[in-house]
Amino acid sequence: MTDIHALSVREIARQVAQRTLSAEAVTRAYIERIDALEAAVHAWQYFDAELALGQARRLDKAGSASGPLAGVPVGIKDVMDTVDMPSGYGSPIYATHRPVTDAAAVAAVRAASGIVMGKTVTTEFATFKPGPTVNPHSLSRGEPHTPGGSSSGSAAAVAAGMVPVAFGTQTAASIVRPASFCGIIGYKPTFGTLPTAGIKPLSPSLDTLGVLTRRVDDAAFFVGVLANREFLLEVAGGLRVGVCATPHWDAASPASRQALADAARSLEASGAMVADVVLPHACDNLADLQTAIMSYEASLAYVPEYQTRLNDLSEPFLAVLAAGAALGGERYAVLQQEAEQGRGVMAAVFDRFDVLLAPGAPGEAPAGLVSTGDPIFSRMWTLLGNPCVNVPVCTGPSGLPIGVTVVGPRWRDHVALSAAARLEKALGVQ
Amino acid sequence: MTDIHALSVREIARQVAQRTLSAEAVTRAYIERIDALEAAVHAWQYFDAELALGQARRLDKAGSASGPLAGVPVGIKDVMDTVDMPSGYGSPIYATHRPVTDAAAVAAVRAASGIVMGKTVTTEFATFKPGPTVNPHSLSRGEPHTPGGSSSGSAAAVAAGMVPVAFGTQTAASIVRPASFCGIIGYKPTFGTLPTAGIKPLSPSLDTLGVLTRRVDDAAFFVGVLANREFLLEVAGGLRVGVCATPHWDAASPASRQALADAARSLEASGAMVADVVLPHACDNLADLQTAIMSYEASLAYVPEYQTRLNDLSEPFLAVLAAGAALGGERYAVLQQEAEQGRGVMAAVFDRFDVLLAPGAPGEAPAGLVSTGDPIFSRMWTLLGNPCVNVPVCTGPSGLPIGVTVVGPRWRDHVALSAAARLEKALGVQ
Repeated sequence: MTDIHALSVREIARQVAQRTLSAEAVTRAYIERIDALEAAVHAWQYFDAELALGQARRLDKAGSASGPLAGVPVGIKDVMDTVDMPSGYGSPIYATHRPVTDAAAVAAVRAASGIVMGKTVTTEFATFKPGPTVNPHSLSRGEPHTPGGSSSGSAAAVAAGMVPVAFGTQTAASIVRPASFCGIIGYKPTFGTLPTAGIKPLSPSLDTLGVLTRRVDDAAFFVGVLANREFLLEVAGGLRVGVCATPHWDAASPASRQALADAARSLEASGAMVADVVLPHACDNLADLQTAIMSYEASLAYVPEYQTRLNDLSEPFLAVLAAGAALGGERYAVLQQEAEQGRGVMAAVFDRFDVLLAPGAPGEAPAGLVSTGDPIFSRMWTLLGNPCVNVPVCTGPSGLPIGVTVVGPRWRDHVALSAAARLEKALGVQ
Repeated sequence: MTDIHALSVREIARQVAQRTLSAEAVTRAYIERIDALEAAVHAWQYFDAELALGQARRLDKAGSASGPLAGVPVGIKDVMDTVDMPSGYGSPIYATHRPVTDAAAVAAVRAASGIVMGKTVTTEFATFKPGPTVNPHSLSRGEPHTPGGSSSGSAAAVAAGMVPVAFGTQTAASIVRPASFCGIIGYKPTFGTLPTAGIKPLSPSLDTLGVLTRRVDDAAFFVGVLANREFLLEVAGGLRVGVCATPHWDAASPASRQALADAARSLEASGAMVADVVLPHACDNLADLQTAIMSYEASLAYVPEYQTRLNDLSEPFLAVLAAGAALGGERYAVLQQEAEQGRGVMAAVFDRFDVLLAPGAPGEAPAGLVSTGDPIFSRMWTLLGNPCVNVPVCTGPSGLPIGVTVVGPRWRDHVALSAAARLEKALGVQ
């Protein structure tokens, strides 16, 4: 009998399309995992097994034509609109909200015959206030550790085997950090790759839709389907890798530094050319730029909630809005010009290197559920819009996962994905 | 007695804030104009005089504290969400849609004590299928002429004196072209300046929120309030003006060419240095890039409507989606890189010139209401994200208005606004 949980996304879709496997069997296998673990993990904001099974049965009953994601169960981050499930954006303001139209990417999953499994927990408006989700790797420990955020439920659901793929969004570090903490693949495509229609905006010049998966190929295949393209991955041949301490090296724990060194050594052993890269000083303040730009854009985007539902906004979120209001539009315009210069500086770095390797997070997932951890290592890449892929490398002193970020040039995502797949292979992932 | 229709936006707000004029009196004065002309102009998708007056009365009854847009009646393009009015996006699919949250910019108008006057007619999803709006300048003519689009109702409402300011959005030419056709100011800020949260997305890397007004200062003041900044306009001193035929000069009618020459001469007479500028050949295909990028992004954004409401989409809109689907994601990624190079090329042009002057449209508004005219002259500027201000210059052979576009460097909108205000003054506008 097929071990459904061992199948890649591509393989699930192929077998369901060829009718050697039913969508219902796939969906049931994942529902069983949800039933077994959800009481401990709390990955789901909304989950209705019958709603998921109904989609699977309709697909099985339909004629032979099915889409490229046939029968693939997908977790939907709850900042994305769904017509058949509440869309709460992690805020009490929208707890019972039922949008009239699916988010574009959700509709694309349905159009491709994927199964919309449910809504995964997000922090408040994809910012700081955590939900109840527990890092699956901490389940056997004395205390729960954060899965990271803001795509907390999506990362935990994939790590726990509840879905093979789930959407994440990243405005600061919200895909890469939870992927690093949960020991899975997190792929933030080049800014603008996937459609944001029907996703609650936070900071439109930064908000990026991406995915969390178990393997690089799953992420490449899934995003390729949604973006109407194909990423051809090459895991051999010449590859110039720049090992990038980033301007935030002081924040990297010994275990995170070790993960970066291990990843670099593995790629070198696979035949890649590996060298240290020191970023120009123009990059030193990019994380600060990201923080300021995000706060200003949020302060404009959340005027409606601020004006009408002030008491339902958390203190950390109000602090973001206040920082943005204090910044003001003139300063924002200057910072956007600096961000643009930063993109030019980084493009020159990618003339010398195919990809950069950088820390994905300061270390293991912190203990407790009051914070989703420090976003520092992703802020600059989100600002610049470069594609990033988190690849799990090792475990830290507490036995929790640590990953590295593979950063590639903008609009050439196959380069970052190829290097990530090569690293995955070099590290011995099947 | 104050001639309310002669007051600038700034002056309305000042007098209402100081209680020398009531918000109700302002709102009534504009409602009277709507009552007199709407049956002929059809600018409004939704207008309820009592709803507008209710806002004005509440403002008048409130304590002394009022916001910077106190009592200013504002037209809201019907691609923007409003909680108290239907938000139809120009499509039968959303004819009765009532969003749960205002668009961010609408909420900002309310927060600033502005009056949300009603919803103005938009073409279908801000694309091609026109609404019923008639160009006010064609009312006394034998046949109606288009007001341009997609911000058709907003441009006509401002031109007819029904509101002093109205929102427009531009993805191709949807602010500048109707402004040119209707003989008013159209200000498309630098891409990303105003918040797009709660605006139906068409093409997120191009969609730009801006305004239509009667005078440049109104546009600068209004956008400044919404963006939490102040644009300081300078209408004297040295100014380097590049007269830019654009790669589409063949499409410019004699009257449009004359308008450009007249505008250049007026600025020169005001003391500006005026010279012809020939754009590098790298700019030749920018309009084509805009067309392709818009169609691809629309093809991703409108999967929900395409999947569930196909029969309610117009043929011209379906043609856009089909073109985008045919383009595909790999080609799109290449085109986005070319667009980025174009921005670099244009930045170098703005090292030599403070602003460019270019045609705003091929000529006067075409007769009939079956088309909103040719967007060709705005496509490249929207792609590049530069701020544009349409300034009315003269009338053409049919007696209808013709404008020019003042284009400035990105993120320094005060430069384009200052030059536009200077041109307005040089042309003898009060």
